[in-house]
Amino acid sequence: MTVKAYGTYAADKPLVPLEITRREPGPHDVRIEIAFCGVCHSDLHQARAEWAGTQWPCVPGHEIVGRVSAVGAHVSGFKVGDLVGIGCIVDSCRHCPDCEEGLENYCDGMVGTYNSPTPDEPGHTLGGYSQRIVVHERYVLRIRHPESQLAAVAPLLCAGITTYSPLRHWKTGPGKKVGVVGIGGLGHMGIKLAHAMGAHVVAFTTSDSKREAARALGADEVVVSRDPDAMAAHAKSFDFILNTVAAPHDLDAFLVLLKRDGTMTLVGAPATPHPSPNVFNLIMKRRSLAGSMIGGIPETQEMLDFCAEHGIVADIEMIRVGAINEAYDRMLKGDVKYRFVIDSASLAG
Amino acid sequence: MTVKAYGTYAADKPLVPLEITRREPGPHDVRIEIAFCGVCHSDLHQARAEWAGTQWPCVPGHEIVGRVSAVGAHVSGFKVGDLVGIGCIVDSCRHCPDCEEGLENYCDGMVGTYNSPTPDEPGHTLGGYSQRIVVHERYVLRIRHPESQLAAVAPLLCAGITTYSPLRHWKTGPGKKVGVVGIGGLGHMGIKLAHAMGAHVVAFTTSDSKREAARALGADEVVVSRDPDAMAAHAKSFDFILNTVAAPHDLDAFLVLLKRDGTMTLVGAPATPHPSPNVFNLIMKRRSLAGSMIGGIPETQEMLDFCAEHGIVADIEMIRVGAINEAYDRMLKGDVKYRFVIDSASLAG
Repeated sequence: MTVKAYGTYAADKPLVPLEITRREPGPHDVRIEIAFCGVCHSDLHQARAEWAGTQWPCVPGHEIVGRVSAVGAHVSGFKVGDLVGIGCIVDSCRHCPDCEEGLENYCDGMVGTYNSPTPDEPGHTLGGYSQRIVVHERYVLRIRHPESQLAAVAPLLCAGITTYSPLRHWKTGPGKKVGVVGIGGLGHMGIKLAHAMGAHVVAFTTSDSKREAARALGADEVVVSRDPDAMAAHAKSFDFILNTVAAPHDLDAFLVLLKRDGTMTLVGAPATPHPSPNVFNLIMKRRSLAGSMIGGIPETQEMLDFCAEHGIVADIEMIRVGAINEAYDRMLKGDVKYRFVIDSASLAG
Repeated sequence: MTVKAYGTYAADKPLVPLEITRREPGPHDVRIEIAFCGVCHSDLHQARAEWAGTQWPCVPGHEIVGRVSAVGAHVSGFKVGDLVGIGCIVDSCRHCPDCEEGLENYCDGMVGTYNSPTPDEPGHTLGGYSQRIVVHERYVLRIRHPESQLAAVAPLLCAGITTYSPLRHWKTGPGKKVGVVGIGGLGHMGIKLAHAMGAHVVAFTTSDSKREAARALGADEVVVSRDPDAMAAHAKSFDFILNTVAAPHDLDAFLVLLKRDGTMTLVGAPATPHPSPNVFNLIMKRRSLAGSMIGGIPETQEMLDFCAEHGIVADIEMIRVGAINEAYDRMLKGDVKYRFVIDSASLAG
């Protein structure tokens, strides 16, 4: 089946309309009419080949929400008409320890929603900047938010789970002091989620102008990280810091804010390395510097349900798909509060 | 009371004989006739002012063993004649959460055995390259090894606890695959201890010549880290890696050997930074890079008792105190198997 999509044939070319093929649903497949697709910074990195391994054509998009339009004969969990989502994962090996624990995101055979090997045409997966997608039911998420919030749910599928998973893994909750570094697509979700989990949330930003916005998102305190006195006032006090900034920056400035046994977890990967952290800052208080990558399918469902229960969605700016190249340029300037979402109806022309 | 010691008055001067003053034992103090003192790489760093903050004169030494020669009126845990040890800590604030948990090593008010502020003359602590030391009983350790092993017990007070504490904290034991990077003063203890804890131990060395020695220490496997194929064979397989190498080196080569949720803990601090680790290697398997610093007093006692029970001591080369400058030069070349220990009787002249 041919569907309309948006993608690019080269790193230095803009995204343009193109047509792609979707497989007919197999016995365990769910076919989804895509209603909205969030625009993640990874989309830009891969469309512009800033990370290794981009396959052409590249059709990005892994924050997908829509409605089921067909199900295979053996699909038991979904029916036509259901509101569903697809995140960063459309397949995995299904039998390794990671898959068995529901941590498909760490499976060596994880198939990303775009730019991963697949038997389908053209040999690599094509993402959510398209009208339809066909996915094995194991990787389909149920959306329990009201339909009126559907567009703002889309970014939960990547920005939401990427921040939810480490916050849960490192036991964010009441009595914990949690920092969130960066107030962008990921960071604004981190603040909302950590707040909803009951932690005392401190947002770090380089820009004093984001102070009120961070408070509105749920931060109990806001610290401008360029202010040494403000930073020093928080020395050795954090249980956990979620660092969402992908640009190279001084990690030590935040490591010294961790209390004994505290962890700072990076969820952004810079194109060039951060300055090397000072080993003494790790040794002196038995601190950890960690990383975390999206989340598994069961935890993504848990996150969606948590967000539905707490009324949490992303703050978005809706765009037509034809505005995607301009949106990428604005993302690079940080000019979005906080996530672009493509109205997939605009793909029809 | 004046006692003989060895120390230096400047970073570029050799250690020489000198006389220092020890306080009279207070009500809670224990006076110890030092029998042996291990020679730690930290001693060299601080005597040569390679780390910030060396106070002069500098009398190093924090791997101290000996016999109690006097106790204060309120000392309940020790009596004259007991075999005891003093490690890296001779005081701390005693009331912070770290102290209350027995993690005096992480107390902001920790007083190191040398080069830390003290009301005693000359205003900073003077270490174990000396005939006697006077320490509050809270920081005195009981030695249950046979007296014939006393010299080889000395290095347990720093090299032993520095490796034991992270091995325990990160849950080394049966069923766990544990790496030890570096086969020196710290690493050789790490191998012995991880083996005794029941883990499958893999030693990493840059030198093929250390292969048999590492096996003799208790390594189940030995990997020459310069051999890419040998390294690749262990990819994604370690629960924990204890990295004892203080020289700057490629951390990524070891981070990629950790399985999902694995941790590599650094116990050495390089004078210049390691190359910055690749953030993708942390993110892809939710790995952690951590640090650990010696251990608390209760855990040091636990380590000594564990070693006594398992017949574990350090492998040492005994020296007279007059050979200390030559010993430092040999340490810099890695020419010691695996720890120098000063025979304190040689201080008498």
